[in-house]
Amino acid sequence: MSKETVARALRQARSALILSHLNPDGDAVGSALGLMWALRQRGALARVVLADPVPPNLLFLPGAEEVERQVPPEGADIVVVLDSSSPDHVGEPFAEATARSNLVVNIDHHPTNGAFGDVNWIAPAYPAVAQMIYHLLPSLGVQPDEATATCLLTGLVTDTNGFSTPTTDSNLLRDAAELMDAGAPLPDIIQQAYLNRSLTQVRLWAQALQTLQWEDGIVWAVNTPEMRRAVGASERDSSDLSTFLLTIREARIAASFTLLDDGRVKVSLRAKPGYNVAEVAAQLGGGGHPPAAGATLDMPLEQAVQTVISALKAQVAATTPHAQLQLS
Amino acid sequence: MSKETVARALRQARSALILSHLNPDGDAVGSALGLMWALRQRGALARVVLADPVPPNLLFLPGAEEVERQVPPEGADIVVVLDSSSPDHVGEPFAEATARSNLVVNIDHHPTNGAFGDVNWIAPAYPAVAQMIYHLLPSLGVQPDEATATCLLTGLVTDTNGFSTPTTDSNLLRDAAELMDAGAPLPDIIQQAYLNRSLTQVRLWAQALQTLQWEDGIVWAVNTPEMRRAVGASERDSSDLSTFLLTIREARIAASFTLLDDGRVKVSLRAKPGYNVAEVAAQLGGGGHPPAAGATLDMPLEQAVQTVISALKAQVAATTPHAQLQLS
Repeated sequence: MSKETVARALRQARSALILSHLNPDGDAVGSALGLMWALRQRGALARVVLADPVPPNLLFLPGAEEVERQVPPEGADIVVVLDSSSPDHVGEPFAEATARSNLVVNIDHHPTNGAFGDVNWIAPAYPAVAQMIYHLLPSLGVQPDEATATCLLTGLVTDTNGFSTPTTDSNLLRDAAELMDAGAPLPDIIQQAYLNRSLTQVRLWAQALQTLQWEDGIVWAVNTPEMRRAVGASERDSSDLSTFLLTIREARIAASFTLLDDGRVKVSLRAKPGYNVAEVAAQLGGGGHPPAAGATLDMPLEQAVQTVISALKAQVAATTPHAQLQLS
Repeated sequence: MSKETVARALRQARSALILSHLNPDGDAVGSALGLMWALRQRGALARVVLADPVPPNLLFLPGAEEVERQVPPEGADIVVVLDSSSPDHVGEPFAEATARSNLVVNIDHHPTNGAFGDVNWIAPAYPAVAQMIYHLLPSLGVQPDEATATCLLTGLVTDTNGFSTPTTDSNLLRDAAELMDAGAPLPDIIQQAYLNRSLTQVRLWAQALQTLQWEDGIVWAVNTPEMRRAVGASERDSSDLSTFLLTIREARIAASFTLLDDGRVKVSLRAKPGYNVAEVAAQLGGGGHPPAAGATLDMPLEQAVQTVISALKAQVAATTPHAQLQLS
């Protein structure tokens, strides 16, 4: 069984380099640091290397200040790659780390994962890789301490959008309760990792929301370099706007368009249960999951908006709404 | 023990009128409908009467369409008042219902509750009254069915702001897991009850966010009748803006000012753990809990903003930040 093979590899390693994906999110950083602390609890050497910096909302995590950007020259017994469907998603550290190690361990929940490791545990039923790590702890003989529990619970909270994705089940809540009992402060984690936007980001949202439109169940908004300059924001500050737009009652699908500084248009798509934006993103040369996907288009803003909204309207028209949307 | 006294009164009643507070929120409606379904599971007659309508984000709840605005002429054996610290918070139905019944049962978690019932269970340690109702079910001999569980879990989710208030503990998560196992769809509940704003509301936020200000850890924004007219919004559409403002990283305290149509100024206050806006609200003639409070001021908008922000600055200056805010 692949879970046990992976557990054996982790047990045998005296040192490990832990990698995750570019633009790391709460599950990438949380599962990596959680595994780092768990391996250290066993007495192993463990370090986390990420190509991109830890985002501000995750700097509260125990060990965040130890995350490295470069692979250390001495390498390690094993390389553990988390939450990354291919080496491309890891970026430069992948080749550097694997060149200096004996074994690649691949742990992921993306169904598209190419099983590129020497040992692989790919489990798409898991809402978060952090939960996979938590389920490995008994095989590692580790009882999570406060640091381990805090990092893992952060992955659970962020990859389920605060327990709101359709894959959230009662077992996940029980795991979350156990992690709280081990010392993880759930309210703080939600407030720091999930409900945490910068003043600049909200000022940019206020600009973008002036362009808010709604048609046929699709809600969208646009942000431009002028708007970003007006509030001192960067392109990244628009990143969570599509998630916010999806909280609008009338939205079946939400789209956020960012006119990039180089003139291309980045579109971020979010869908309520039963709708699939991964298909539309794929048509546009992008990718993602059914509820969250995106693409970058090399065309004028107006044309990009028209193209995407037409494709989304066709998607909504072709979809039978999910039964869960009509609860009572 | 007051819990057992209340349980006995509920067991003996063949009919019950269930009341809760004006401007009902998720815990008011969720605990009332949850108790209604539980009493019906026992074979009793149970009805819910609320002075104000069920808000749109709670209309998905099983039984929401049965909620009445008027006390029925036949009355009932008992009146159960939930989540209301005084009869004033219930409004007109209180006097009408109690005139036509033999016993008032008072179940609440506000520390300021005046124990105005014939039997009372006041338990401020509970994050939500819905959780108190859930803990009564064994004494009532009721295993929650899907309707009961859905209503009660909605109260848990909304009164803890999606499990993010400091009172959220692992026992609450385990109760939530049990309610899921009984059929309550947590992801749908979060998306419908909690992550659910109308297009009009978000358009009003976009107007108000143009006035966003930040000083000394306090974030605030203003909305006016002109802004509401511009987007077709009502005074109520500004209600959750303070909660949203508190998600800003730089905010220790958030304030939303609504210039009412009658010229008064309603201020809604929210605080991160360790800060207490109930004290400031009380100084201003209002009330609430330490993390969430409010008041209505009879003075010009500019003066109201100055008065409140000065009081909040004094509050921040006098507060030692909570240890949990500096986790790592």
